[in-house]
Amino acid sequence: MTIRVGVIGTGAIGRDHARRINQVLSGAQVTALTDVNAAAAEAVKAEIAPDAQVFETGAELIQSDAVDAVLVTSSGFTHEDYVLAAIAAGKPCFCEKPLATTADAAKRIVDAEAATGKRLVQVGFMRRYDTGYRMLKRVVDTEIGRPLMVHAAHRNQSVALSYSTQMAIHDTLIHELDIFRWLLEDDYVSAQVVFPRATPHAHEGLRDPQMVLLETAGGVRIDVEIFVNCRYGYDIQCQIVGEEGLANLPDPMAIAMRKDARLQTALLTDWKDRFIDSYDVELADFIKAAANGTAAGPTSWDGYVAAVSADACVAAQEAPGSIVPISLPARPALYG
Amino acid sequence: MTIRVGVIGTGAIGRDHARRINQVLSGAQVTALTDVNAAAAEAVKAEIAPDAQVFETGAELIQSDAVDAVLVTSSGFTHEDYVLAAIAAGKPCFCEKPLATTADAAKRIVDAEAATGKRLVQVGFMRRYDTGYRMLKRVVDTEIGRPLMVHAAHRNQSVALSYSTQMAIHDTLIHELDIFRWLLEDDYVSAQVVFPRATPHAHEGLRDPQMVLLETAGGVRIDVEIFVNCRYGYDIQCQIVGEEGLANLPDPMAIAMRKDARLQTALLTDWKDRFIDSYDVELADFIKAAANGTAAGPTSWDGYVAAVSADACVAAQEAPGSIVPISLPARPALYG
Amino acid sequence: MTIRVGVIGTGAIGRDHARRINQVLSGAQVTALTDVNAAAAEAVKAEIAPDAQVFETGAELIQSDAVDAVLVTSSGFTHEDYVLAAIAAGKPCFCEKPLATTADAAKRIVDAEAATGKRLVQVGFMRRYDTGYRMLKRVVDTEIGRPLMVHAAHRNQSVALSYSTQMAIHDTLIHELDIFRWLLEDDYVSAQVVFPRATPHAHEGLRDPQMVLLETAGGVRIDVEIFVNCRYGYDIQCQIVGEEGLANLPDPMAIAMRKDARLQTALLTDWKDRFIDSYDVELADFIKAAANGTAAGPTSWDGYVAAVSADACVAAQEAPGSIVPISLPARPALYG
Amino acid sequence: MTIRVGVIGTGAIGRDHARRINQVLSGAQVTALTDVNAAAAEAVKAEIAPDAQVFETGAELIQSDAVDAVLVTSSGFTHEDYVLAAIAAGKPCFCEKPLATTADAAKRIVDAEAATGKRLVQVGFMRRYDTGYRMLKRVVDTEIGRPLMVHAAHRNQSVALSYSTQMAIHDTLIHELDIFRWLLEDDYVSAQVVFPRATPHAHEGLRDPQMVLLETAGGVRIDVEIFVNCRYGYDIQCQIVGEEGLANLPDPMAIAMRKDARLQTALLTDWKDRFIDSYDVELADFIKAAANGTAAGPTSWDGYVAAVSADACVAAQEAPGSIVPISLPARPALYG
Repeated sequence: MTIRVGVIGTGAIGRDHARRINQVLSGAQVTALTDVNAAAAEAVKAEIAPDAQVFETGAELIQSDAVDAVLVTSSGFTHEDYVLAAIAAGKPCFCEKPLATTADAAKRIVDAEAATGKRLVQVGFMRRYDTGYRMLKRVVDTEIGRPLMVHAAHRNQSVALSYSTQMAIHDTLIHELDIFRWLLEDDYVSAQVVFPRATPHAHEGLRDPQMVLLETAGGVRIDVEIFVNCRYGYDIQCQIVGEEGLANLPDPMAIAMRKDARLQTALLTDWKDRFIDSYDVELADFIKAAANGTAAGPTSWDGYVAAVSADACVAAQEAPGSIVPISLPARPALYG
Repeated sequence: MTIRVGVIGTGAIGRDHARRINQVLSGAQVTALTDVNAAAAEAVKAEIAPDAQVFETGAELIQSDAVDAVLVTSSGFTHEDYVLAAIAAGKPCFCEKPLATTADAAKRIVDAEAATGKRLVQVGFMRRYDTGYRMLKRVVDTEIGRPLMVHAAHRNQSVALSYSTQMAIHDTLIHELDIFRWLLEDDYVSAQVVFPRATPHAHEGLRDPQMVLLETAGGVRIDVEIFVNCRYGYDIQCQIVGEEGLANLPDPMAIAMRKDARLQTALLTDWKDRFIDSYDVELADFIKAAANGTAAGPTSWDGYVAAVSADACVAAQEAPGSIVPISLPARPALYG
Repeated sequence: MTIRVGVIGTGAIGRDHARRINQVLSGAQVTALTDVNAAAAEAVKAEIAPDAQVFETGAELIQSDAVDAVLVTSSGFTHEDYVLAAIAAGKPCFCEKPLATTADAAKRIVDAEAATGKRLVQVGFMRRYDTGYRMLKRVVDTEIGRPLMVHAAHRNQSVALSYSTQMAIHDTLIHELDIFRWLLEDDYVSAQVVFPRATPHAHEGLRDPQMVLLETAGGVRIDVEIFVNCRYGYDIQCQIVGEEGLANLPDPMAIAMRKDARLQTALLTDWKDRFIDSYDVELADFIKAAANGTAAGPTSWDGYVAAVSADACVAAQEAPGSIVPISLPARPALYG
Repeated sequence: MTIRVGVIGTGAIGRDHARRINQVLSGAQVTALTDVNAAAAEAVKAEIAPDAQVFETGAELIQSDAVDAVLVTSSGFTHEDYVLAAIAAGKPCFCEKPLATTADAAKRIVDAEAATGKRLVQVGFMRRYDTGYRMLKRVVDTEIGRPLMVHAAHRNQSVALSYSTQMAIHDTLIHELDIFRWLLEDDYVSAQVVFPRATPHAHEGLRDPQMVLLETAGGVRIDVEIFVNCRYGYDIQCQIVGEEGLANLPDPMAIAMRKDARLQTALLTDWKDRFIDSYDVELADFIKAAANGTAAGPTSWDGYVAAVSADACVAAQEAPGSIVPISLPARPALYG
């Protein structure tokens, strides 16, 4: 059985997911495309999915009989409507981050999905499919005792002028907010942000670096450095300290070279290379679940909790040093 | 366009390649199966390829109009006939190692393919598709100057009683014999084998470890340790020393853990895990080339040269310490 | 010229320093010994310094014409009196940590020494003499731009029942409090302590682990994990993140071994082994300066600031999460 | 008791050893100096050993009542006479490499010392005192089973025009020849040398790199790469493969830094820095033994065996690829 996939939003990531489905992965075909820029949809059709139908609107695409499952890769503010429509149509839906642009909107998706009694939404937290994080989770679950602390860092070489202090939470930390929950199987109860002396390499108006301190319901303490003008590379670090030992997220595989009086290993500089393999795996997981009419992987609840937690971190940015509580409603049974 | 693949030999590796084609990769489907044990072919049909036709013989499968490309994963002694038949039929053919059981047989395949003027055969030297080796090749090509020496090791935890001293060449070293040629873009001119004191963990009659010393036409000197009862894990090491620096094949990604008074990283113990990702990539390459009616990757010439070089190493085993010359006929233009 | 050294306090560390002076280092001899337990002093005389005179009191030893320089290795509460007496006698004085048991007492030593206009006191912060930290300082000073953040950890396998939550500051963190000041050439302005979920391996009444967050006058943010029942080893970690890159304190040299399906390196388990070489170097530095009638290395001001900073951390322990300010009087010119 | 040391030869290394004795180590003083260049001896007297007497000849120095022990740090061709004279005088003697310039001369020293029935000579194979090699020996002795193979490399950034192909054995490999014997507690029975393609960075007339293959009486097989124009640094590698696992000589401690898109660690470029600490330790061992009127550490027998083994390697260079046997006379009981 081949799953017929409709792609809403054919920008860079939508186009790339279409390529994956049609040229890399087994079990699905892109049969429908749409974009606010119709020419973009036509270009992807021409290049990647010649047999696909181009729809004028996402709503029509979702309703089409030629579509078994939906990929939402359009602008963030449109996600809520498309995901709700897919849920209403009973079609599995893969939604890129963010699930919605506000926690309230994300909650409406959770409620709608929970009301169906069935998983239909997968959120694009691709790190959960990364080989390194999966290895780390296995070790955390079996080797080092209960986790007590996490020391982490999210560093970019540099960012565009449009990158704001808040985006350090909503665009950058958001990945850590999800992955720590998954690694620890725990939720946050408070957040604190402190600002070290700013690097001179940040543009005016951007507080960089930042340190975020999180506390979980289980008492785990987490410190995350966010440093988006670190200059040296794109670098994701995560160390879990448990009762019996500690474990580190591995660096990406690289060649150790001895040259120029240095033992040296190249670091990544482009974030797009860091989790590239995990995009294939997350979509394969989506296709597999969609073949059974359901969804797997990160849930809409995960998307909602990430949004709530991120909002608390932004509040913590606005009152540096103060400890901002985080509270969640009861978790629907569907996401148990 | 979906390539219709016929699989000859549905043992462990044939079954696994069928699974890859039907469940993991895009662009191909298994449409035909055959095995000397018909029940095995039927089982793979039932489990993986319900729409495939089971043929009584490989010859019939190769001739079938329902087959665009052929996978030869049967016993080694049958490879020559099947590959020659696929060439005669003008169908792309992926052949697992060895290409043939003698250098002469491999040469007949080379000659047949060369006579068609077109690549039709890919030999299953999967290491060329391994991420680590590909990274190493890029560094060797661009960073460390011309290669001068290679230090390598191929270690297994232990081997079955059926494993013989010669198999250390034909089953174990064969991978190094191919991959060094690919890394160095060079051929061997001599081989020497010396035997260190044997490990007490080898079974009677097996010389283990062994040291193989190779010289290339370009003057590169290679030492390879083969140690198939090393006890500690499955471990593939490769260091290239060039005029400006040196580079090492990376170890497989693993979690660094601090526990029990040790900084420790798990090593693989099962060879099947070591290059598992490269099987997907080599088959994807085969499917892509087959869609154009041709073959890519390791050639029948590579398979032939590996066979000639391995024969010289076996001769070198039989006269420990003596230097055995290796010579090759002219390389057909097709493999330039 | 051979410096004649008097040792006050011949317990484990006093005895060990005496051995260093007489058997390892050049330029000094132990000529005087004293201990509240006279038998202990006699034992060290017999074993290590047969020509030394045993004094009844530290005061007499300090006054003796046979003593050029003084080592204070007695119980902490006695340090103030002995160091003040040595200053009064104009004799260089090496004082083990702590310089005094209260910040006020340490301040009295600072004032007394400053009044002489000459360095006479070296405090036993031996990490400043450690090869790894010295390498780190060189890199911090020259390679990674201005420091912005420090991520550090101080982990012990386990501690005695007598170890208290406060001792995590006064006995454990005290080393970090000194070494970060030295690495950063900066002082603290605030401290915060948070307590992760406690390990079940800590004894009753001990909060373990702890996270200490420090801010410096220059805006550097420091997080230090203190975990004294980490089970896996004695482990000191320090990472400095600067404007242009980051640098890590190296682990102690150890053999990388492949064995038992693990790439493994032994970790230290006994803190006494971690900085063992630095004791030789700090005493050699003391002897060298004493030959010129002065003192080098960590100053009494350093000892005083460590005491003030530690007191603030203890206050921060008592109000978890709150940010406790740290302020210092003007630094006397002697310690410029 | 202070050992009174006479230094014969006050070039760079003699001067440096004099500094060690007088300024770093405990238990000895330089009381006598001599050099073919009297001004050099006077300069060392002035700078380091003002109380020392300068002798016109080494013979007189050895005979002097003011000398308890002798350091021979003069030109290699003079070593035999001085060491024999020290043995005749019954005085402990530290002799820098080589013990003598021919195996026969070294054998005369062995015979003379053996005739006295007492160890009097220590040869300056300082690697045996290196922390890394000592750690390696401990692991080899206790953790990895009986050694089967050694993979090693000795690399220099570059060498002077005066460096010859033979010096790769007598000046470079000589250290490996000694240290493998010590690590393995075994002697060589054969040597083979092969020459890879030469690096273009070697000066005319120098064969560089070289590969030396050694076999021990116990059947251990050793490959050593000698590459003295490797460009990237001074690098000593040693891996011992045993029946149960393998162990590597650690690299010198260095700071791991992330900077410029590289995880990077500085490598040494000057050989003088590589084993600098071991010079202190070897001389401390000499002083300690000399206090008992004897010698410890590497013996004259070790010096002799190194000379015999090196001569075989030079013979092997002259007939590349051929296997040159190495045989030794019976080992005198003194060196059991």
